Amino acid sequence: MRILFINGPNLNLLGQRETAVYGRATLADIRRRVARRARALGVQVDFIQSNHEGVIVDRIGAARKRYAALVINPAAYTHTSVAIRDAISAVALPTVEIHLSNIHAREDFRHRSLSAPVCAGQICGFGPLSYELGLEAAVALAKAAAKSAGKRP
Amino acid sequence: MRILFINGPNLNLLGQRETAVYGRATLADIRRRVARRARALGVQVDFIQSNHEGVIVDRIGAARKRYAALVINPAAYTHTSVAIRDAISAVALPTVEIHLSNIHAREDFRHRSLSAPVCAGQICGFGPLSYELGLEAAVALAKAAAKSAGKRP
Amino acid sequence: MRILFINGPNLNLLGQRETAVYGRATLADIRRRVARRARALGVQVDFIQSNHEGVIVDRIGAARKRYAALVINPAAYTHTSVAIRDAISAVALPTVEIHLSNIHAREDFRHRSLSAPVCAGQICGFGPLSYELGLEAAVALAKAAAKSAGKRP
Amino acid sequence: MRILFINGPNLNLLGQRETAVYGRATLADIRRRVARRARALGVQVDFIQSNHEGVIVDRIGAARKRYAALVINPAAYTHTSVAIRDAISAVALPTVEIHLSNIHAREDFRHRSLSAPVCAGQICGFGPLSYELGLEAAVALAKAAAKSAGKRP
Amino acid sequence: MRILFINGPNLNLLGQRETAVYGRATLADIRRRVARRARALGVQVDFIQSNHEGVIVDRIGAARKRYAALVINPAAYTHTSVAIRDAISAVALPTVEIHLSNIHAREDFRHRSLSAPVCAGQICGFGPLSYELGLEAAVALAKAAAKSAGKRP
Amino acid sequence: MRILFINGPNLNLLGQRETAVYGRATLADIRRRVARRARALGVQVDFIQSNHEGVIVDRIGAARKRYAALVINPAAYTHTSVAIRDAISAVALPTVEIHLSNIHAREDFRHRSLSAPVCAGQICGFGPLSYELGLEAAVALAKAAAKSAGKRP
Amino acid sequence: MRILFINGPNLNLLGQRETAVYGRATLADIRRRVARRARALGVQVDFIQSNHEGVIVDRIGAARKRYAALVINPAAYTHTSVAIRDAISAVALPTVEIHLSNIHAREDFRHRSLSAPVCAGQICGFGPLSYELGLEAAVALAKAAAKSAGKRP
Amino acid sequence: MRILFINGPNLNLLGQRETAVYGRATLADIRRRVARRARALGVQVDFIQSNHEGVIVDRIGAARKRYAALVINPAAYTHTSVAIRDAISAVALPTVEIHLSNIHAREDFRHRSLSAPVCAGQICGFGPLSYELGLEAAVALAKAAAKSAGKRP
Amino acid sequence: MRILFINGPNLNLLGQRETAVYGRATLADIRRRVARRARALGVQVDFIQSNHEGVIVDRIGAARKRYAALVINPAAYTHTSVAIRDAISAVALPTVEIHLSNIHAREDFRHRSLSAPVCAGQICGFGPLSYELGLEAAVALAKAAAKSAGKRP
Amino acid sequence: MRILFINGPNLNLLGQRETAVYGRATLADIRRRVARRARALGVQVDFIQSNHEGVIVDRIGAARKRYAALVINPAAYTHTSVAIRDAISAVALPTVEIHLSNIHAREDFRHRSLSAPVCAGQICGFGPLSYELGLEAAVALAKAAAKSAGKRP
Amino acid sequence: MRILFINGPNLNLLGQRETAVYGRATLADIRRRVARRARALGVQVDFIQSNHEGVIVDRIGAARKRYAALVINPAAYTHTSVAIRDAISAVALPTVEIHLSNIHAREDFRHRSLSAPVCAGQICGFGPLSYELGLEAAVALAKAAAKSAGKRP
Amino acid sequence: MRILFINGPNLNLLGQRETAVYGRATLADIRRRVARRARALGVQVDFIQSNHEGVIVDRIGAARKRYAALVINPAAYTHTSVAIRDAISAVALPTVEIHLSNIHAREDFRHRSLSAPVCAGQICGFGPLSYELGLEAAVALAKAAAKSAGKRP
Repeated sequence: MRILFINGPNLNLLGQRETAVYGRATLADIRRRVARRARALGVQVDFIQSNHEGVIVDRIGAARKRYAALVINPAAYTHTSVAIRDAISAVALPTVEIHLSNIHAREDFRHRSLSAPVCAGQICGFGPLSYELGLEAAVALAKAAAKSAGKRP
Repeated sequence: MRILFINGPNLNLLGQRETAVYGRATLADIRRRVARRARALGVQVDFIQSNHEGVIVDRIGAARKRYAALVINPAAYTHTSVAIRDAISAVALPTVEIHLSNIHAREDFRHRSLSAPVCAGQICGFGPLSYELGLEAAVALAKAAAKSAGKRP
Repeated sequence: MRILFINGPNLNLLGQRETAVYGRATLADIRRRVARRARALGVQVDFIQSNHEGVIVDRIGAARKRYAALVINPAAYTHTSVAIRDAISAVALPTVEIHLSNIHAREDFRHRSLSAPVCAGQICGFGPLSYELGLEAAVALAKAAAKSAGKRP
Repeated sequence: MRILFINGPNLNLLGQRETAVYGRATLADIRRRVARRARALGVQVDFIQSNHEGVIVDRIGAARKRYAALVINPAAYTHTSVAIRDAISAVALPTVEIHLSNIHAREDFRHRSLSAPVCAGQICGFGPLSYELGLEAAVALAKAAAKSAGKRP
Repeated sequence: MRILFINGPNLNLLGQRETAVYGRATLADIRRRVARRARALGVQVDFIQSNHEGVIVDRIGAARKRYAALVINPAAYTHTSVAIRDAISAVALPTVEIHLSNIHAREDFRHRSLSAPVCAGQICGFGPLSYELGLEAAVALAKAAAKSAGKRP
Repeated sequence: MRILFINGPNLNLLGQRETAVYGRATLADIRRRVARRARALGVQVDFIQSNHEGVIVDRIGAARKRYAALVINPAAYTHTSVAIRDAISAVALPTVEIHLSNIHAREDFRHRSLSAPVCAGQICGFGPLSYELGLEAAVALAKAAAKSAGKRP
Repeated sequence: MRILFINGPNLNLLGQRETAVYGRATLADIRRRVARRARALGVQVDFIQSNHEGVIVDRIGAARKRYAALVINPAAYTHTSVAIRDAISAVALPTVEIHLSNIHAREDFRHRSLSAPVCAGQICGFGPLSYELGLEAAVALAKAAAKSAGKRP
Repeated sequence: MRILFINGPNLNLLGQRETAVYGRATLADIRRRVARRARALGVQVDFIQSNHEGVIVDRIGAARKRYAALVINPAAYTHTSVAIRDAISAVALPTVEIHLSNIHAREDFRHRSLSAPVCAGQICGFGPLSYELGLEAAVALAKAAAKSAGKRP
Repeated sequence: MRILFINGPNLNLLGQRETAVYGRATLADIRRRVARRARALGVQVDFIQSNHEGVIVDRIGAARKRYAALVINPAAYTHTSVAIRDAISAVALPTVEIHLSNIHAREDFRHRSLSAPVCAGQICGFGPLSYELGLEAAVALAKAAAKSAGKRP
Repeated sequence: MRILFINGPNLNLLGQRETAVYGRATLADIRRRVARRARALGVQVDFIQSNHEGVIVDRIGAARKRYAALVINPAAYTHTSVAIRDAISAVALPTVEIHLSNIHAREDFRHRSLSAPVCAGQICGFGPLSYELGLEAAVALAKAAAKSAGKRP
Repeated sequence: MRILFINGPNLNLLGQRETAVYGRATLADIRRRVARRARALGVQVDFIQSNHEGVIVDRIGAARKRYAALVINPAAYTHTSVAIRDAISAVALPTVEIHLSNIHAREDFRHRSLSAPVCAGQICGFGPLSYELGLEAAVALAKAAAKSAGKRP
Repeated sequence: MRILFINGPNLNLLGQRETAVYGRATLADIRRRVARRARALGVQVDFIQSNHEGVIVDRIGAARKRYAALVINPAAYTHTSVAIRDAISAVALPTVEIHLSNIHAREDFRHRSLSAPVCAGQICGFGPLSYELGLEAAVALAKAAAKSAGKRP
């Protein structure tokens, strides 16, 4: 079972700036934590980051064959991208939306997520732990989907 | 006379998923229907698709010399892209906005089109036929523009 | 196959006033263009106009037996008539909403159509050509409906 | 280390009705799953349910001495109770808000959480697994709080 | 057949104060009128009042086994309680919402009922007669439900 | 005592279409049920239907001499007609607003009634039974009005 | 010079009811006052009333040949009729909107006039005197229009 | 009988600039037209202009003893001054609000008048004629007030 | 003369937490300050606190016989409880709303008080002094009420 | 210790008009009550009134050297003056906002105070007693400020 | 060439208070910086400040003959004064709006400028440098205006 | 010292189309003006343009090491890009937002800038001069930042 982690714009700068909001861990640190937990759960993970909305849409559209589930931190595109929402909806893989910070405690325009309604659920506010919990949720969803698909003749 | 068809994000997935909303025709099927009608009308069409807002803006900006009119299905960018609106407005070619589904019968955030006010008109809800009707409208607009330009000394 | 064209309030004044917005063609001119295209498509059309919301509701309600589809330009009632919306919804014929002007480029209160969500689709902004494209869409919808009805035992 | 789980109104009916939205697990089933995971994590959990806003406020106010963290599913009070928000804010324990269903995919009035901005984070949409992930997040937050308190002289 | 009448906050004060809005009948007077009509209809009614949102939620949750239908005057909670709405929705008994006064003719914040959308219907503005009409509607709904349940094998 | 029932637009189509929303009873069926109950109550009823807002306004304006009360199902005009509201307000007869379906559980624009604030009360959601309950409420209101008029010297 | 006065719905009831808001003068009384002032100004006036939106639209549409200006009290249609607005706009006669009561001091929904923006101006709040002042304004506007038309070769 | 005309900010610049909106007449020209009509009506008028909100409030507050009615063109303060509204309300003289231009046909923020609800009525859109009609309305209101005061013992 | 002080949810935690917003005084400290001032004013006070909305409604409903006035700090229920508002309105005792903090300088949702419009007035922002000033206002209101009641025969 | 009372527009008319809302006391009466209480508290008060927003801003700006605190009844400027808000904020004296009437029980536009968020607190609804309570609050605030300033070395 | 700088309310207090927002420079300091730059650019500047909206309107109205351009910092009146907007619009001089602070990063009500739409442009956020940049922009605009005026015969 | 100028979508078309709004200068012309002024100020500038939001985010993220400040004309992305806002916020360089046209005088959706609140300030409306003034502001901000950084040990 293979899970794809997608990281949106500016997450390449993680750990270097605005550490009061986002913490000191870099994206590479988080990737290592996720990899460790993935091994414990017996699954494989890929991990990408892009500042380009179109690239993220491309990758979601191409994920269907290769991945059992998606974990996505759309960052700024959470609040502005109907295209990412439509891609998640079109590809129909179990998808978990995650955020490092508690978006409900920040500026008003960050309270609304365009992608959350087409994901299975959302986890936010726990820093890098959000990624680990997101992985566990994705694995559970993927297993349930596999099982329910297996039942159909 | 040459007309450019521009297709926005996720339309590359057409016919594979969410067929209840978008139907079973793929983008290649639609391209064939449009080509057939273009031959009947005696015009030539080019047909592009991109998930990247910037690529679409680039292509509109470069269309001026080469094309007599545009037919655009901006998909998700219909509702979020001021950049595409500004590009259509700047390039000043006759432009027809089209949609496969009836956007007025879907979620609230799909009712508002940022690009429609700078297009000549909008056609939505008729599946692939929206593309054919869009072509006919674009040809009529381009002929009228050519005629009115021809009048000026 | 018989198609009914319904024209809403003030369209009897067409071609006489506000020609900058609506053009110089009169409703009789448009009827002739529609009739010509109807012959080419092998269908018959009826064409009515009324300033009375109640008359339009009556005519839609009575259309079921006699017509295969409706093409409606509700004009000012587009934005205020729940009764016309309910009539279209009740009669359940394939219906195409059309407008001469691009309503999305006009005053704010003209952007919202109460009837569009219960129609199959909407065509606006192409002057009398909107009527011809509307006819073609209506014929296609009526054929598809007939075919799908024919399938049912 | 002791963690308090608080369950809001109507959760006593869980598993009996509206199983399409909330699933078939009863609150007792969920309590067992949480207890099992608590043992694995080496912590103790208490688990209460009440339909009374005032009772929930009382219990949060009294939690400070006895518990290291709170996990709360405020159910309907999520969207209406300023009193629960103020209680969480006053008691200043690390708090995790959880939901069985994806509240962002339901009715509009369920999108806004009054309590989320004063919690550390929110987990929603994963059914009973939301409870387990909430426990893990609460334990991590409580350990971080204990460590940072230990540092102060 | 047994019907439960639930009366929300401040209805214990009925007939003593604000008689211009609510009339001079006390809740005991209304109970007697309802009892008389119940006898005529051959059904039994229970009649409770509470100022506590949680108590009302408890009673709705417990009604399923014992009652064939609910008639509820949620009073002030009509406009603020998502918990009562969720309880009605969860218990899935035929429910009629009633009000003594015409809530649509009072302050703006009384126009929106959170519970009405999950009830079968609403009756308001007829003083104690609203209770009698509510009883008749509830009996009709309960009989229809019993009949349709009886049909299922 | 004579009561006037007024039925708004599209109610002539009742029982033929959209039976999922409005049920299978025709307006003639409903009229028979109302007539039966009127006989039981010892009153007479007239029953009209019109798709024309102006006709309905005329009939309300002319009702004063002939009728003791009005029962009105304004259908689509409920949400758009200030003229009907002003007519009810001007004629000053006891008036009951009724609806077959529960308007509070349907589209947003059907939640607001322009006429309800000038009626005595509203009954909705009980199908044809709404008409019978409306009749009973109207008779009670008319008797109360007659009694209070009788008291004045 | 001939001026048309158009009176909207319920104005036939004037002087009989709600005299606190609209005064005791009947429409016939007002017509006499207007006629007297018309003689003093040396113009002729016609005076119609209809409860039908469609009839008013018809009359405006037919006014162009026969009248030099319009004075309209659209009553309830002031706030809901885009059709009357479009008719005034289409017929392009100088038009004065008048009201007996001060609409800005009444319910919120009466503050917005759909027709005022396409009229030359608005007069409200002076009872029957609003009609006389409206006549004087209409005559002045018609003379100015005639003069400016006379200037054009 | 003495009437006070109050002119708000920037009206001292009248006739010099923005003549497309406000016309070519200066405030002195308008004063002469008003004086002429006042003589015909047998009343006296005073005429002031100020750019200072406080000065206008002072003058209204002091008007009570000396004037029978007010005619006010609050210009920009129409839309922002609660103080002028409160002054008109406190002084309780019959007051007519006038505007040279049709404020309902201009920018959105000019549609709402804070003072209109406490005036007897409003006249707008007729240029200097608005002043003359305002005078006639004020004289009529003052006479009616005098008459009704005379009646009281 | 006896005055009832009612304290809403979480005020039992006063002085222990969030001292930056609410200060260091406990509810017991405040009660002592109020008692001292009550003695100086020659009146008696009772002082209750509850986290339960229903309990507060009960206590207001029962206050009529025993108390001359109410002073209420509804805390979080200020912004959500229509039930407390209705209770104050029903019991018709002179009531003063008080707050320790300046609610107008805090989060947006704390700016609106549902109960203030049915109280005599509101005092906020002065910490425990708000209670003393509230007492003085309540005593003055109660004396005025007693005096005006005494006047009536 | 010296306190400045500032009274906004139209308060010079107090006691003469609209006595139902504002009572019969004149501003001079209130000044006497305030002076009496000031003597009891051992402080001195100045008392000004102006209808001019600019004058009020001038006086606040000049108050810093001479006064220990401000008590302001901004009257109509409460709801419209950002300039007075900024002046209070800039001068940084303890400031109490007062109102004679309960602004939360009046028109909607009177519910929002622009100045309250930069004052220490607000007192409204108690007539002239609001002034006395405002004085007491201001004295307490000024003493606290003096004490806390004295602590700083 | 002569440029007028207009400074709105509370700017006389600059440099004394709220230095975190507005900096330590006084208005006299800024005037010296502007004078220095004016000499370098070969133009003359006048520099006024007033807390009175009416005075600012007076000065703008009188500026036409004497000044080539305006630079205005309307301070608090930016957000509330339609009168200043109308004055700028009426006087038709090139006008630059400036602010010391970045108004887009402050409270919501400071984001909207009523005057900016009638100015040539806006500069904000650079402290005293905003004044210097405003001067340079004003000089450029005035030269362009002079040049374009010179071209006209 | 090196400053980066970033130009958003469609600015490559500058000077060719919509010259009424944006003027006749091309981006190359503007670059030459900026270069000249940069030499005068003794700094170096780089100048990029892209239609791709992702490219702009990439470039801002990479700017930290190489540039002392940013000047950005985000064009259409001003109003839609949270990603660019977050990039500016993350990179923490002094940033100046500029626009050729006065965005406050254009369509409503252009009034709100998502990036302005995280920039130091905004300059708009002066055509190419906006770029020069933006450069001067950026240099001043960079010098101040360098100076303040130098102070820290």
